[in-house]
Amino acid sequence: MPFLEENLLEERKSPTSKTSKTTYLLFISISISLLLFTASPPPKSTYHSLYVSVSESENVTVSHHLLILTRRPHVAGSPANADAASYVLSTLTSHSLRTHISSYHVALNYPLSRSLTLTRAHPLGPTITFSLDQEIYAGDPYADVAREAVPTFHAYARSGSVAGNVAYVNYGRVEDYATLKGMGVNVSGTVVLVRYGKIYRGDIVRNAYEAGAVGVVVYTDTKDYGGGVDGKWFPEDRWMPPSGVQVGSLYIGAGDPTTPGWASTSACERMDDEEIERGGGIPLIPSLPVSSADGEAIMEAIGGHVAPDDWQGGAESIDYRVGPGPGFLNLTYNGNQTITTIQNVFGVIEGVEEPDRYVLLGNHRDAWTFGAVDPNSGTATLLEVARRLEKLQKRGWKPRRTIILCNWDAEEYGLIGSTEWVEENREMLASRVVAYLNVDCAVSGAGFHVSSTPQLDKLLKQATQQVQDPDNSSQTVYESWIQSNDSQMVGRLGGGGSDFASFIQHVGVPAVDMFYGGEYAVYHSLYDDFVWMQKFGDPMFHRHVAVASIWGLVALKLADDEFLPFDYVSYASELQRSTKELENEILGKPISLSPLYKSIEQLNKAATKINDQRKALEGNGWASMWGKDPLKVRELNDRLMMAERAFTDRDGLFGRPWYKHLIYGPSNHNDYGSKSFPGVDDAIEKAKSSNTTESWKSVQHEVWRVSRAVTHASLVLNGKFT
Amino acid sequence: MPFLEENLLEERKSPTSKTSKTTYLLFISISISLLLFTASPPPKSTYHSLYVSVSESENVTVSHHLLILTRRPHVAGSPANADAASYVLSTLTSHSLRTHISSYHVALNYPLSRSLTLTRAHPLGPTITFSLDQEIYAGDPYADVAREAVPTFHAYARSGSVAGNVAYVNYGRVEDYATLKGMGVNVSGTVVLVRYGKIYRGDIVRNAYEAGAVGVVVYTDTKDYGGGVDGKWFPEDRWMPPSGVQVGSLYIGAGDPTTPGWASTSACERMDDEEIERGGGIPLIPSLPVSSADGEAIMEAIGGHVAPDDWQGGAESIDYRVGPGPGFLNLTYNGNQTITTIQNVFGVIEGVEEPDRYVLLGNHRDAWTFGAVDPNSGTATLLEVARRLEKLQKRGWKPRRTIILCNWDAEEYGLIGSTEWVEENREMLASRVVAYLNVDCAVSGAGFHVSSTPQLDKLLKQATQQVQDPDNSSQTVYESWIQSNDSQMVGRLGGGGSDFASFIQHVGVPAVDMFYGGEYAVYHSLYDDFVWMQKFGDPMFHRHVAVASIWGLVALKLADDEFLPFDYVSYASELQRSTKELENEILGKPISLSPLYKSIEQLNKAATKINDQRKALEGNGWASMWGKDPLKVRELNDRLMMAERAFTDRDGLFGRPWYKHLIYGPSNHNDYGSKSFPGVDDAIEKAKSSNTTESWKSVQHEVWRVSRAVTHASLVLNGKFT
Repeated sequence: MPFLEENLLEERKSPTSKTSKTTYLLFISISISLLLFTASPPPKSTYHSLYVSVSESENVTVSHHLLILTRRPHVAGSPANADAASYVLSTLTSHSLRTHISSYHVALNYPLSRSLTLTRAHPLGPTITFSLDQEIYAGDPYADVAREAVPTFHAYARSGSVAGNVAYVNYGRVEDYATLKGMGVNVSGTVVLVRYGKIYRGDIVRNAYEAGAVGVVVYTDTKDYGGGVDGKWFPEDRWMPPSGVQVGSLYIGAGDPTTPGWASTSACERMDDEEIERGGGIPLIPSLPVSSADGEAIMEAIGGHVAPDDWQGGAESIDYRVGPGPGFLNLTYNGNQTITTIQNVFGVIEGVEEPDRYVLLGNHRDAWTFGAVDPNSGTATLLEVARRLEKLQKRGWKPRRTIILCNWDAEEYGLIGSTEWVEENREMLASRVVAYLNVDCAVSGAGFHVSSTPQLDKLLKQATQQVQDPDNSSQTVYESWIQSNDSQMVGRLGGGGSDFASFIQHVGVPAVDMFYGGEYAVYHSLYDDFVWMQKFGDPMFHRHVAVASIWGLVALKLADDEFLPFDYVSYASELQRSTKELENEILGKPISLSPLYKSIEQLNKAATKINDQRKALEGNGWASMWGKDPLKVRELNDRLMMAERAFTDRDGLFGRPWYKHLIYGPSNHNDYGSKSFPGVDDAIEKAKSSNTTESWKSVQHEVWRVSRAVTHASLVLNGKFT
Repeated sequence: MPFLEENLLEERKSPTSKTSKTTYLLFISISISLLLFTASPPPKSTYHSLYVSVSESENVTVSHHLLILTRRPHVAGSPANADAASYVLSTLTSHSLRTHISSYHVALNYPLSRSLTLTRAHPLGPTITFSLDQEIYAGDPYADVAREAVPTFHAYARSGSVAGNVAYVNYGRVEDYATLKGMGVNVSGTVVLVRYGKIYRGDIVRNAYEAGAVGVVVYTDTKDYGGGVDGKWFPEDRWMPPSGVQVGSLYIGAGDPTTPGWASTSACERMDDEEIERGGGIPLIPSLPVSSADGEAIMEAIGGHVAPDDWQGGAESIDYRVGPGPGFLNLTYNGNQTITTIQNVFGVIEGVEEPDRYVLLGNHRDAWTFGAVDPNSGTATLLEVARRLEKLQKRGWKPRRTIILCNWDAEEYGLIGSTEWVEENREMLASRVVAYLNVDCAVSGAGFHVSSTPQLDKLLKQATQQVQDPDNSSQTVYESWIQSNDSQMVGRLGGGGSDFASFIQHVGVPAVDMFYGGEYAVYHSLYDDFVWMQKFGDPMFHRHVAVASIWGLVALKLADDEFLPFDYVSYASELQRSTKELENEILGKPISLSPLYKSIEQLNKAATKINDQRKALEGNGWASMWGKDPLKVRELNDRLMMAERAFTDRDGLFGRPWYKHLIYGPSNHNDYGSKSFPGVDDAIEKAKSSNTTESWKSVQHEVWRVSRAVTHASLVLNGKFT
């Protein structure tokens, strides 16, 4: 082919003519012609079917992983948790993933001393000193290692000693204090007794402080967590034993409190205690969590008005009264805050066609005690996903996009491992990550639950249609799922409950959180161990296997589908629904939602349009036969990926600038809350209490902000400058 | 080819096997083989050479455009400026660009009434009432239309009447008020006389307000603008006539003040006057600009201490004294603020290979008067760029990336047209724009000047090496440029001086601003007309042609080069240099710059590494012969493009959250300032005046913030997650 050779020489002579690719294309074309008469690999869907075709032994592998991961308590920063990291790392490596550990140096704290005594002031009764220990039952296989568990405490609790009459304040919500005020009960100067259950414990202590309390005791009411006096409890039943205590963090926010917004690297800037206090995420009065037995003992010492009906305990309980007093509590907590090294473990399978587009699967590893449910059911499942992906790779599969399995540390303290990593890698995440798929507790019981950003709804339905229900082999997970849910099938990610938070709420990465569960009464207690899982959570480990199937399948579709399986029409419908809800909240107020409705209409149009464009690009016959311009596919996918980012606003929520997403974020008074439009929600709450013109104007401003974010998302979907 | 057909049938039968492209590739390869034995187009560099190969007539075309654009005064919002928009639109359309207009509804204001009188209180002298008119000279061809010019005023000036003894405050800088204080002069309650020149006029009025003045008169000192009593002035010479007045805006900030951070669309949220006032960008005391003649008349009425030597006027001036009084000024200004429609005009040439990557060339159109220099020398040049691009297209050239020519409106009021558009399109700009190339005043005299973000330095040098010096045909622009500059050749974009601001400072888009100029004394006056340009600015219009060459060539390289011509090693050196400067400023203070130095070292490493990776991808022999994977090229280019974004911080500068870029932004006390590290600069200024431990800690915090941004940029260049 002399013509070709001549041209090539010319190319060499003229270094500026590199951009002319015609001759190279010719070369390529001929080479392809010669090379391609070999068998083509099976389509990706074949591999996806293979991925979910479960054999008999998966459950054994998963349960083995869980057994090993939960041999000892492994709180963040402990040697036991570093051992668990090694196990995860070596398992991922053994499954042919490229692995590494990313460490951060974060401020964690541990209890040094705790004491709680109850005195009856009038008439002077005996003083009870609570042991604050969780009992070990006869025959407990973990009796030896149980003492390695961190003593029951609240992470980031205020150190100090306080004393006061005790007042009962129900779940410690803002409205509970309002009820007490209405009853003429003043909790100022008291130590409040609160029951766990409705709001995040950080908000429990904050609300108590704001109501004037000097200390907080949070207990597990048997009404909410089972295992009452006459009932059965672990190890006989799934319920919390009377001495069981829910440990947990009080931090309101995400990530290391000493490094707000940036990564806790070895030599980084750190806020001092005073600055952290000003940040508002750290409690200002001491607190302790206690068991149902201790809570009941304290309750018996409270007199005064009988509490309202919905404040009462179970059928067998005494009448709850609100006090304050005559019971008097002395509470001491001293904690030790240190900069501790934590480890995030990663396993990577590099994408072949789009190595710079990422699908992330994440679960945390650190546990308050053994972590059989929380979080190592998820960790075991993650390792099972790794095993199956290796199986696919051995059969010739390679993902189109890069898949990263992430195993986070220090989630329990405040989503720390994931948040520090997200803060460090923020810029890359913002422009390259397709989706983050979280599984915290993979299994705590029966019933499939999933939350996600709405463009993923359809994909989640499709994936669950391909996986068998672990509890009813005659149907799919999808079929059981739609039978069990009355209203909204897919939940949303407004709360700060797990490691998805920084991905969606700080960066705007489409996200999913899923689990099998319900009736998980031993949450954050010493009894969250392998025995509990085997007896009550998932005796056959088939639910774990099902989560591995759904989680991995969603990841595979996101990683392999030429066009990202995102549908923003669902997003528009969901926003429409949320706006309708909002309408009810502001009835009769001087607020117009029409900017928001208009922007949602635009979004719906843009979403429909891009769906049509995708169909056109997918094409039929010739269009698809000829293959697609990879940059055209990329362009459309980038719009689908980046539209979620557009829901974030760089200035963030008012007063909480770390939270950038204007649709999904925690509510100001309950970090577990998952309402839409958190900024609007906060503003309404303020306006309802102050009821000034100015405050309602702020609500309108927040409505405008959301509508502008929605408009930005439409523009991104359209992919055209105005 | 039976094998193929069979496979195709199989594909049709199995809809899930679409991702298998083997068979299609085969099809493609054969088709390419058949098709490619046609001539290949010339390399892009040939077109680029053609672009700069200027014939004899370019200057005629450019001068014709300028003549038409400057026929009448055309302030933003005027019908004359809408006519100019039509001219730009039709010219771009005639040059085969796809054009459109994007309108915004912005708050502009115009003077309703103005008056200024001077009385000598002691002894009672005659009252002078200033006409505040700019005189028309005999034979002025624009005499008829000159009255269409907006009366001399300050845009966004405070309406009201004030009176007081007049005090002379030099350039009205913070340090000038400090000098007065040192002299025992109290300016509280006075109307201050300030001369234009060293700082932004918005800061002049703000500083006066902060010093306690009740009104401000800003005049043009012949010392700084030429044309003194015995000198010559326009039309005899380039200098400002005695009655010439520099009009201009006082707004401190960018974009419509009623829509901070969002686009001024027809039905959008708007801040009310009170909220705007709280924003701090709008002056709180009335002011007027006056001529040198009026300024001198006022100066003559000022007694008191003789002003310091460097406060004095030219050789022919009287002695300047500081007052206050005995001269007494009555100043009235009333303006009319209305929501006005403005038009941005766009012309697009769609990229063939990467239509979703953009190179933007921008210039504004609105002028305070005729705008021959400011800004329509740039507009005429933009139209010349369009003409030449059409010429290339006719010869078969198509850009790799999309090129957009932008013609902004209402720049003079506060970069409004460009800012509203950037705010509306922020998300797309952030992820898709390669660079923004600004030309405001293309030509005001001799001497090439350019400012840019540092990764573009090398490209600017290369481009100027390809263009002939318009004032010395024996050498290139580059050669004259290096001869004329003693220290730093390329300036930086920290100031708020033109439409590049929102691109670089709000979004983090790499940017350039260039012009030919010097001794442009008629700035913002009635005399900035075609006659001035023809007589003094660019008699042959060859400088215009040279700007068109450089501007377009830089754009072509950015649009056509397979790999983006960005070099971050320059960025690292530049940051190193700026940090050294910073070191001098904080000598002896408790500030460590080592985090910053470390991060710059990382950046330098990352920049070197990506340069090597580019070389490897560009390859020799086989590697380049086979063509490159377009997604691999894209991946590397994305890192180069997005690294600049990483210098922005979503929270923005302290107290000025709209400014997101931590390296380049205006200084707090002078919007024209263009220092590096504006956040550090602000903090140092505060710390130096308060000198508390807390304030120096804030400086350290700002140093940390910058170093984290630099680290983010390195991570983006590396393209790897930690």
